[in-house]
Amino acid sequence: MSKLPDIKTNFPEWYQEIVYKAGLADQAPVRGSIVILPYGNTIWEKIKSYLDSRIKATGHQNAIFPLFIPESFLKKEAEHVEGFAPELAVVTHAGGKQLEEPLVVRPTSETMIHFMFAKWIKSYRDLPLKINQWANVVRWEKRPRAFLRTTEFFWQEGHTAHATKQEALEETLQMLQEYITLAQDYLAIPVIKGRKSKSEQFAGAEATYTFEAFLMDGKALQMGTSHLLSQSFAKSFDMKYQDQKGVMQYPYLTSWGVTTRLVGALIGSHGDEHGLILPPRIAPIQIVIIPILRKDSKEKVIAHVKDLQQKLQSVGLLVHIDVDEHQSPGAKFYEWELKGVPIRIEVGPRDMEQGVVVAVSRINRDKQVVNVDELAKKLPVMLETIQSQLFERAQKRYQQMWHKVEKLANFANTLEKENGIYQTGWCESVACETKLKKHSATIRCVLDSKEFKQCFACDQSSAFDVIIGKSY
Amino acid sequence: MSKLPDIKTNFPEWYQEIVYKAGLADQAPVRGSIVILPYGNTIWEKIKSYLDSRIKATGHQNAIFPLFIPESFLKKEAEHVEGFAPELAVVTHAGGKQLEEPLVVRPTSETMIHFMFAKWIKSYRDLPLKINQWANVVRWEKRPRAFLRTTEFFWQEGHTAHATKQEALEETLQMLQEYITLAQDYLAIPVIKGRKSKSEQFAGAEATYTFEAFLMDGKALQMGTSHLLSQSFAKSFDMKYQDQKGVMQYPYLTSWGVTTRLVGALIGSHGDEHGLILPPRIAPIQIVIIPILRKDSKEKVIAHVKDLQQKLQSVGLLVHIDVDEHQSPGAKFYEWELKGVPIRIEVGPRDMEQGVVVAVSRINRDKQVVNVDELAKKLPVMLETIQSQLFERAQKRYQQMWHKVEKLANFANTLEKENGIYQTGWCESVACETKLKKHSATIRCVLDSKEFKQCFACDQSSAFDVIIGKSY
Repeated sequence: MSKLPDIKTNFPEWYQEIVYKAGLADQAPVRGSIVILPYGNTIWEKIKSYLDSRIKATGHQNAIFPLFIPESFLKKEAEHVEGFAPELAVVTHAGGKQLEEPLVVRPTSETMIHFMFAKWIKSYRDLPLKINQWANVVRWEKRPRAFLRTTEFFWQEGHTAHATKQEALEETLQMLQEYITLAQDYLAIPVIKGRKSKSEQFAGAEATYTFEAFLMDGKALQMGTSHLLSQSFAKSFDMKYQDQKGVMQYPYLTSWGVTTRLVGALIGSHGDEHGLILPPRIAPIQIVIIPILRKDSKEKVIAHVKDLQQKLQSVGLLVHIDVDEHQSPGAKFYEWELKGVPIRIEVGPRDMEQGVVVAVSRINRDKQVVNVDELAKKLPVMLETIQSQLFERAQKRYQQMWHKVEKLANFANTLEKENGIYQTGWCESVACETKLKKHSATIRCVLDSKEFKQCFACDQSSAFDVIIGKSY
Repeated sequence: MSKLPDIKTNFPEWYQEIVYKAGLADQAPVRGSIVILPYGNTIWEKIKSYLDSRIKATGHQNAIFPLFIPESFLKKEAEHVEGFAPELAVVTHAGGKQLEEPLVVRPTSETMIHFMFAKWIKSYRDLPLKINQWANVVRWEKRPRAFLRTTEFFWQEGHTAHATKQEALEETLQMLQEYITLAQDYLAIPVIKGRKSKSEQFAGAEATYTFEAFLMDGKALQMGTSHLLSQSFAKSFDMKYQDQKGVMQYPYLTSWGVTTRLVGALIGSHGDEHGLILPPRIAPIQIVIIPILRKDSKEKVIAHVKDLQQKLQSVGLLVHIDVDEHQSPGAKFYEWELKGVPIRIEVGPRDMEQGVVVAVSRINRDKQVVNVDELAKKLPVMLETIQSQLFERAQKRYQQMWHKVEKLANFANTLEKENGIYQTGWCESVACETKLKKHSATIRCVLDSKEFKQCFACDQSSAFDVIIGKSY
């Protein structure tokens, strides 16, 4: 039970220890890779299950495309290969022989999927085509960090084709909105949405939309992106269809994805000096029951809590009983707090006789004595309260770190010393954007709003407000 | 609407055309790979969903292990590397550099998972450890065939560790039985279960249990396997724990898996000259409604069938309406029969007025006029009937191709000419087993039973009955 690193002064260490100590992941014997343990994987499975249902409800179908992509495919879209080349893992030998053409382990599947789209899209009646894939992808990362940046990661990648640019744009924004609902309503993470600047957008896209979170240390995390690819990939892959008038046209494409990084965002958004705090809607275990076991009443208390568990499971709650006799109740409290279970229930022999339990909220450690008969009604309410409290707590954190600033000359010092959300105006020139580099910051996203009149770095007027921050 | 190849005389061609024409998969531009299309993927998702719930209900937890395995790991178990070496795909370059140690794309994960198990299993209290992974794996196949044998395929691999050999054996057989329930009760495929002969078992296992199907052409297909690995891998990976007496012990291991090959088994088990026939419990679409659209009543009929669809969906049925106005009803009948949808419902304007529909069974094309009010009651019964009929039809096929034979000298001729199930006795010697090679046959499995007294190839007495067949 060694102490956790201090969350305020040493967040990166705190993050890493939580990942391993809470049993979310373990280090793997391959550079930049992790083993996602059952506790962490259940969170990912819950994210997948919710998002998959939304992807299907919005008219997309799942398919599976190959892991390996011929090297020549990536070279078809010039910007695309330039963007991904440094991160590729390449299979050169297979079946005991050197391959004639090396195969790239997919870093993303645009090229493979667009090759297939070109085969499938022949007529306006084949549009829109709305496909999604759940898959593993590989990008050789220089600075890996569990969940946030791993060599192999897991994601869904949506790929769609449309007859008009307007429809493609609507698709791009619709899926961005689905992601934001997932982040805010399920992961309890407030996000800032916007466009990426040209220099930060996806290799080959016309526009990249993003939603950004700011973790507990004030650093920004790109949680997911949705790209309006327009026609560049369609042209590279000779993807043409006959429109209603018989004229050959290129379709407008989109792609969008979120990854296991969302689990990292969750860890980095909700926690305290005692460990992780999981939002109830995404927690693998919502309620842990810790029976206080004494020699003379042990069996009765265990039977009693098993009965409680069944009743609570029957109303849809995820309940675990910790019956380990080798651990003291105190050690169990410590462990389940570390793992972030939203509610802990303590039941001793006297509680049992009195027909009550003690319910403890993970977020503020409030204790409540609850009548056993009322548990099935009260616990769902408590869980929803914790869900809201977590979101509000994070919102408050954003407010505290949100700086509205005008001129870089004046805020450069603060920006360097203090991580946070810096909102200002921008003229949209790369020259001004580049000036942020020496302060280790970037434009995280371009907002729709226009609160500031001037660019943060030059005398030009501002085109749009931007959010500046240091990033993962 | 070109004709399908003859299922009786040209089954391999029939199989391949069904895969592509029914929209289950498409050829991919990478050797031995396919794109699994939404219709085929939905079947796989249904298999996964059912099996995942059973894997969890039997006390296993899902985790995710890396795709890449250091080459040296595979070499730790001598038999294992020998078995897999010819099939490996190897990453030699990544991040723009040659790797110090090549990484193998996993052909199976024993070595990676056992490396982690060795880290996790320290005490008898860490046992049993029961882990499952859903993943893609790569084996460089010489003769690829859609679903049945592809370079990249999808599977679950269960890996468990136990304190005793008896417990490991029970786990091995329990999961085999779960697979058989899936095959028989959901996929409607009768299977023959048994042990693999030593020469056919998994590289590194003590015993491999298998369940085999015989497809419509009389060829055997290994549908899945469950391995009692015992202690060989534990020793190779120095996986040791302290038992209750404080003595260091090696645990007993198991592993078991089924793959996307199950979709291939489904295609090859149920079909006829009109196309695929899908068992209702696994069909992506159980009922297709084809409205007969005439100019004057089109809108009314469409509104009517949408109403029907809603009513049927509300009782849990998977219903699709084909409203495509560019296709004639006849063309639609052809297409949905090809795709194997268990029940077709035809509704014309007159049917609508009379409050009836025509329901057609895919298996025998029986037509029934059903009152609209009775549909929600009658269709589930019809579907269950089709489910049983498919299983019985396959069982009958097995009976017809099941030959009980004594001496190879006498049945060698038939074996070469006629695919089928050949049951006989075997002395368990490799010498006798090898004699099957020149007849392109193998021992598919060793049965528990002992109906035959002598070995099929020598004068020794038989140890067990075996099933001999030609295989995919």
